[in-house]
Amino acid sequence: MEAIPTENKTQPGDDEPKKFVLKTPKGTRDFAPGQMAIREQVFNKIVACFKRHGAETIDTPVFELRETLTGKYAVDSKLIYDLADQGGELLALRYDLTVPFARYLAMNKVTNTKRYHIAKVYRRDNPAMNRGRLREFYQCDFDIAGQYDAMLPDTECIKIIVEILSSLDIGDFVVKVNHRKLLRGIFAACGVPDHKFNSIYCAVDKLDKITWADVRKEMVDEDGLAPSVVDKIWEYVQLSGGIELVEKLSKDKNLTCQENAVEGLEDIKLLFSYCESYGITNRVSFDVSMTRGLYYYTGAIFEAVMTGRETAVAAAIDEECSMGVGSVAGGGRYDGLVGMFDSKGRKVPCVGISIGIERLFSIMEAKALESEQKMRTTETEVYVIAAQKGMVEERLKLCKALWDADIKTEQSYKKNTKMLTEFQYCEQNGIPLAIIIGQSEIEAGIIKLKIMASGEEREVKRCDMIEEIKKVLKTERTTNV
Amino acid sequence: MEAIPTENKTQPGDDEPKKFVLKTPKGTRDFAPGQMAIREQVFNKIVACFKRHGAETIDTPVFELRETLTGKYAVDSKLIYDLADQGGELLALRYDLTVPFARYLAMNKVTNTKRYHIAKVYRRDNPAMNRGRLREFYQCDFDIAGQYDAMLPDTECIKIIVEILSSLDIGDFVVKVNHRKLLRGIFAACGVPDHKFNSIYCAVDKLDKITWADVRKEMVDEDGLAPSVVDKIWEYVQLSGGIELVEKLSKDKNLTCQENAVEGLEDIKLLFSYCESYGITNRVSFDVSMTRGLYYYTGAIFEAVMTGRETAVAAAIDEECSMGVGSVAGGGRYDGLVGMFDSKGRKVPCVGISIGIERLFSIMEAKALESEQKMRTTETEVYVIAAQKGMVEERLKLCKALWDADIKTEQSYKKNTKMLTEFQYCEQNGIPLAIIIGQSEIEAGIIKLKIMASGEEREVKRCDMIEEIKKVLKTERTTNV
Repeated sequence: MEAIPTENKTQPGDDEPKKFVLKTPKGTRDFAPGQMAIREQVFNKIVACFKRHGAETIDTPVFELRETLTGKYAVDSKLIYDLADQGGELLALRYDLTVPFARYLAMNKVTNTKRYHIAKVYRRDNPAMNRGRLREFYQCDFDIAGQYDAMLPDTECIKIIVEILSSLDIGDFVVKVNHRKLLRGIFAACGVPDHKFNSIYCAVDKLDKITWADVRKEMVDEDGLAPSVVDKIWEYVQLSGGIELVEKLSKDKNLTCQENAVEGLEDIKLLFSYCESYGITNRVSFDVSMTRGLYYYTGAIFEAVMTGRETAVAAAIDEECSMGVGSVAGGGRYDGLVGMFDSKGRKVPCVGISIGIERLFSIMEAKALESEQKMRTTETEVYVIAAQKGMVEERLKLCKALWDADIKTEQSYKKNTKMLTEFQYCEQNGIPLAIIIGQSEIEAGIIKLKIMASGEEREVKRCDMIEEIKKVLKTERTTNV
Repeated sequence: MEAIPTENKTQPGDDEPKKFVLKTPKGTRDFAPGQMAIREQVFNKIVACFKRHGAETIDTPVFELRETLTGKYAVDSKLIYDLADQGGELLALRYDLTVPFARYLAMNKVTNTKRYHIAKVYRRDNPAMNRGRLREFYQCDFDIAGQYDAMLPDTECIKIIVEILSSLDIGDFVVKVNHRKLLRGIFAACGVPDHKFNSIYCAVDKLDKITWADVRKEMVDEDGLAPSVVDKIWEYVQLSGGIELVEKLSKDKNLTCQENAVEGLEDIKLLFSYCESYGITNRVSFDVSMTRGLYYYTGAIFEAVMTGRETAVAAAIDEECSMGVGSVAGGGRYDGLVGMFDSKGRKVPCVGISIGIERLFSIMEAKALESEQKMRTTETEVYVIAAQKGMVEERLKLCKALWDADIKTEQSYKKNTKMLTEFQYCEQNGIPLAIIIGQSEIEAGIIKLKIMASGEEREVKRCDMIEEIKKVLKTERTTNV
């Protein structure tokens, strides 16, 4: 596999004055064929899973009216990329795929759908503060919209996360679950006023990046909570476990009087029972400190983290998640978002997940590098070689016959070629078969078929060529599995 | 298939004040599942063709430094979308995929590759002037970079266009070919000064949109050509035909003294001979009026136009190409572009094509509507139905077993369902199989498998379920081809 190009590469050491600054914009990068081959593998597995669960797909524009995006996230709006005002509309690049999805549902009056959407999103993150963070990256979302019974769509979202992470074979992981209603109940029980809930979600959300002491300080100094209130919150957010923790909290006197807490706990109980039927309970952990930063969540929330410490994966996680954050998927229920776009406030309940695809790519790239297996960037099956100079016309006709039979075929774009160079090309690019033709083969109406792995050569009648190649390719594919 | 949502749909007739302007930005649109299903079909066929020809893929950012894009097109730079200045870099959304590709090659010192790239590009077109033109649309590019022998990569590009348009089965088409060097030779022979060539390419390029009288006026009034020069150009740009026209021009006394013209004609001759080997001569037409507007072309240029007049296709072309332009693919050789990015001006010869994918989508959508065949937006194979209320746990377990066996499965997200509603869902969504379970089936360790098309029901042992379903799906797929 080729080396991963570093971001913002420039050309140093040139004597002549530069015509251009040869770089990609800050926070963006190119992806070379080797990286794209891995991306395609990952995308294929993810899309296969989404389709297995009956999802359809939609597409929305890369930019939206700025007012569509603002006020929906409770993140610093400086993170939203503006376009220059060039025709009367104030536009901005999408920050995620969830808000555009909610806008789509409201605009087209769609009340139920199960859709996935894989596309780039944009965040004007400050790379000085967040080393290595990209401003342009893929998101890979699956959402279920519609009025359904509690926790059935939600648990399927978790099942999908488990299927995807298992299929990528990148080590152990766990899906943390929590519930915004339970958190509201806990916060209320601790004495946090309603209007400060969103701010406290964000503060608690930082617990996997900074210490409790710092989070505590933020809650007291910035959010103005009494230290006694903050200390009560700490008692709860330390808790994590399985169904037994849900049972325990259901008996907590402080919470049983909070309607939100009771409802949240009921939901989590149901979620655990459905996880049992799906056979994924071992992958699920109830974690009270997990809050998800975003504003729009209203119910169950999820976050998948890698727990494995295999060499390649561990290194990639350490690299990617330099602040100790190992989240590779997340999501939750957002029942209010669509209503925010509807003129009559009509609600469409939604739950969804977003796969942290860039992080998964990094892990897969590290794995590929470690395995030292050469990654193919093309799928060429046959390479056509002339044993003599010229013979272009014959080569073109052979290629035509192979392409027409849907066999992936290449040949040199040079009129005169050298056999040795051509064989080297096949080896370097992992092409399994070569066809060699010379004057004598043409006269005899045959081709020489060389199986590159074994070096075996056989003569095949021109009229049997396609059938023979398809047979050999099938065998090669089977033996290489 | 659902109706195609019109652009910029708003919600009329609401009494209450609107919370938001519920629309997509000017010149952009959402794509609904039915449209996406067609897009996926088209993309799959195109990518299959690119891979059949041994291409790898890369990705570059949606925006570039503004200076990377400007000065490379000879189009009005007002068409380039700027981002707001938000951190010291002046950025703009890419106008096409060719200039970013050239920047990528120069930056990473890549001297040869065969790559495809499918991604969105942006043009701040004025919709008032160009009705229906989108500001955000997909491009689908294939390029061959490297120092190779004349016309071998170029002709393969034409072969690829022919393969793709044939595979989509949307009617007759022809690939117009011409050569920038020949045009230079012709212009020089007619008396056009060198520095006006680019401007005259653009003027001639308008011939499929406006009359010769108007083009002539532009050349005289705006480009300052003498009427006698313009009239000589007209003698040439009316010409089109096959290899016999190439032969005729090769004997044209005005052109034989123009080195550029001679070289261009030699190339076209070679191209026709390679087309002969590829068996695509019937699809190729040499057309002297075809110039391609863009600045960067240096050699052979191509443009595929639909000539078929089948009802659906014709209507879609008329709709899409309201100004009489039926181009669905185009491209050509651009040997100088990469050098413009290299500090030492090192050249990388390139030739490439861009498939007019949005136009192809419109034609395919029109075809799908005409055929009245219901387009599936999901690939669900099995739907799990309970014959009694509840039974959620049993349904979840069945789904798990099916998903684990990679069978595309759905079930209701409601705890209690009605059999009739469930069967209707299967019919509406073209789901081929339904599994029905009730208490008696569970006790007997069986399932009822219903083949929706025939209505046939059979009892299958739970342990044979996966095998039986896979067998039935295979048969169903074969009979539905």
